[in-house]
Amino acid sequence: MEITPSSDKSDAILVKGGVIITINPADQIIEDGYVLIKADRIISVGNLQDAPPDNAVEKIIDTRNCLVMPGLVNTHTHAAMAFFRGLADDLPLKTWLEDYIFPAESRYVNPAFVYQGTMLAGLEMIHSGTTSVCDGYFFEEAAAQAFINLGLRAVAGKGIVDFPAPDNPDPGLNLENARKYVREFPSHPLVTPALFCHSAYTCRPETLQHIKEICNYHSIPFIIHLAETEAETKEIQARYGNSPIQHLNNLGILDGNTIAAHCGWMKPDDFRIAQQKRLRVAHCPESNMKLASGVAPVPLFLDFGIPVGLGTDGCASNNNLDMLSEMDTAAKVHKLSNKDPAIMDAKTVVRMATIGGAEVLGLQDRVGSLEPGKKADIIILDLNQPHLTPVYNYYSQLVYSASGHDVITVLSNGKLIMRNRKIVTANEKETLAAAGELGKEIKKEMLRQGRKKSGFRA
Amino acid sequence: MEITPSSDKSDAILVKGGVIITINPADQIIEDGYVLIKADRIISVGNLQDAPPDNAVEKIIDTRNCLVMPGLVNTHTHAAMAFFRGLADDLPLKTWLEDYIFPAESRYVNPAFVYQGTMLAGLEMIHSGTTSVCDGYFFEEAAAQAFINLGLRAVAGKGIVDFPAPDNPDPGLNLENARKYVREFPSHPLVTPALFCHSAYTCRPETLQHIKEICNYHSIPFIIHLAETEAETKEIQARYGNSPIQHLNNLGILDGNTIAAHCGWMKPDDFRIAQQKRLRVAHCPESNMKLASGVAPVPLFLDFGIPVGLGTDGCASNNNLDMLSEMDTAAKVHKLSNKDPAIMDAKTVVRMATIGGAEVLGLQDRVGSLEPGKKADIIILDLNQPHLTPVYNYYSQLVYSASGHDVITVLSNGKLIMRNRKIVTANEKETLAAAGELGKEIKKEMLRQGRKKSGFRA
Repeated sequence: MEITPSSDKSDAILVKGGVIITINPADQIIEDGYVLIKADRIISVGNLQDAPPDNAVEKIIDTRNCLVMPGLVNTHTHAAMAFFRGLADDLPLKTWLEDYIFPAESRYVNPAFVYQGTMLAGLEMIHSGTTSVCDGYFFEEAAAQAFINLGLRAVAGKGIVDFPAPDNPDPGLNLENARKYVREFPSHPLVTPALFCHSAYTCRPETLQHIKEICNYHSIPFIIHLAETEAETKEIQARYGNSPIQHLNNLGILDGNTIAAHCGWMKPDDFRIAQQKRLRVAHCPESNMKLASGVAPVPLFLDFGIPVGLGTDGCASNNNLDMLSEMDTAAKVHKLSNKDPAIMDAKTVVRMATIGGAEVLGLQDRVGSLEPGKKADIIILDLNQPHLTPVYNYYSQLVYSASGHDVITVLSNGKLIMRNRKIVTANEKETLAAAGELGKEIKKEMLRQGRKKSGFRA
Repeated sequence: MEITPSSDKSDAILVKGGVIITINPADQIIEDGYVLIKADRIISVGNLQDAPPDNAVEKIIDTRNCLVMPGLVNTHTHAAMAFFRGLADDLPLKTWLEDYIFPAESRYVNPAFVYQGTMLAGLEMIHSGTTSVCDGYFFEEAAAQAFINLGLRAVAGKGIVDFPAPDNPDPGLNLENARKYVREFPSHPLVTPALFCHSAYTCRPETLQHIKEICNYHSIPFIIHLAETEAETKEIQARYGNSPIQHLNNLGILDGNTIAAHCGWMKPDDFRIAQQKRLRVAHCPESNMKLASGVAPVPLFLDFGIPVGLGTDGCASNNNLDMLSEMDTAAKVHKLSNKDPAIMDAKTVVRMATIGGAEVLGLQDRVGSLEPGKKADIIILDLNQPHLTPVYNYYSQLVYSASGHDVITVLSNGKLIMRNRKIVTANEKETLAAAGELGKEIKKEMLRQGRKKSGFRA
């Protein structure tokens, strides 16, 4: 952690003062520290007394009374579904999916919807401290454009199902469209393409295998919902005679480049398979609770050395993208389900939401901690608030007391994308107004169809 | 909901525009409404077109693009424990209580601690939309003073245990001190005294009975922790041969003026007893999860017609006082534990955090809904934010997407106590600074004693 003063101060930023949660291998916390940034990278991290002089940098961000930490990594979401936030809650899974979500998707999802919906979701992500996200949806090229415009780092997974989809009415063209998506994906330092097969129950074995081959050919992540519900495990068992994980393993789908969301229903043998195949798990506790799917055995995954990141899932099943709130739930729900108040301690959860998530996305060399050489994805929280006073343990404060609203300033790839709660990279007012208008249209349409619920009013 | 124009406009306030969530018996939501206040009371609630003219009132609060609802009712907390926020987390219950909380209480809890701690907690409560609270702690007269100063409505329960307590080194003086507390309690419209016997395992049967007699004599609430953990039920069963609820029932403690926090471990017969005795339940799901105590059978309580309110518990076991976050957890944890995504729908949870809580505290004629004649305890949330856009269902938005930070303005008893996130009734900066200083002292002392945890740093 030597200081390497910038010879050219033109693009150096000094994050100066406050508590630095490094998430480095030693889990170092620096109580009065600094972070020096040049261009898109962290140059040095250390004690304030060792910081470069003010006149050696172009910009200083005063972080006294603040907490400075790596940007949060959301390992699983469907950003554009922000438009369906609150459309259909408190319903059985089948009703939710078949009477609300699928019809709404088939009617409303188009490139403009996905771009605007991802912009809306992106604003919320930035406001709540997420800087890296693994997304999966239809028309994902539009989502990727929104992430680029907002300055967010993203793994952008094109959604694939073996039935007519909004962006692919003919599933026979799935492979061709997937290849085209990857080939035409923009070359930009913030975004990585991926292919997202929805699940083993909506994709045939051949589709899964061929899509995985395309991923292997391009060295890009393969994303899938895996063992999310008991019903899914039963269906896969009945169809293929195996657990979902064994089924995918038999198809050759599992390796260190496959990101599996949920993994709530594991058989004893499944853990060894996941370990051997270096599977990466995106854990979405709030979505799993809201849909009554269960609790994923995360403490066991960690015991097996299986990388686990945290995810919010989409806004139709959460209904927010606040990773700090997700951290609180993650810590608490495993204590409850394991009947052990000492399990999933705050530090473990903070690591899962940062470096753990980075490992799941294959970005651990670039993000997830504040260390020299890493990309400067940094969030700054205001500690000087009643609900964050006093502080005995910074990890506890983050997990059990803080929420996304405490994030005041966000840097992504060395650039300020939010400063003092004001988004720098987009016109928030216009994006919100457009989203509100589309929401009203969808609501009117749903009411016309007679799908009126209590509280759901014209 | 007729308009009753104020003949004297001198103290009339018009809350004008936005969505009014009334929580009246018809669960009416008015999409473009108003609330007229005079002195401490709501005069009328209705459609904006029927609102009195601007010149008929002294003050107008513009609530366009906002959600207007009753102030939240926190039915169980220990406010001054805000000073112990994050002091000891992720620990077995016994270690938490015996190595951290009890020693810290015996060393630090005095009237100044309780006053300052309750001020700190009160700031957080106001910031997150709580206007009524049921509190229980030592030196509770100091807490009551803080609630009065902040303008919060409170049931202030003096804590009683059968061992030396910070405010009562000689438990032999429990009854005398309890009587003195009630007798000398300030006569103020915002606060009600109560007596809070910690539990059936820390209070002898005679203590419970005598304290309940004092409560009956003064018609004030009796508060107790009841059936919180499996260990407690086993201990009470071993000592007295009954479940905790049966034990209290045998002692004549249970009636409609007893508020029981937790009630997580119920035997089948216990539900009938609770129903017959009109017991009131304070449900604290986040605390119960964090301490791995279990999930209270709230859907069953509701089926039995037992009043249930929501509570945060103290900051040593949550670690925040955000009722909106508690609502989210409540809705989700019961879906999980009942394997039913339709249970504990958003509207049920919003009612539990408002009128349900008011019933538990015996304040249902005064607060818990926006209806003519009720006290004007009103909170205003800013809807114009990414994470609250679009809106299909207001109850969903409140429970699953909103958090305490979305509350921008708070009225209590007809008075503005927070306006545009700025506390009106206290000097927030000084209160925070004082709390931060005391926190540092406690931390230093704990470190000296060698109770160092990871992240817990000098």
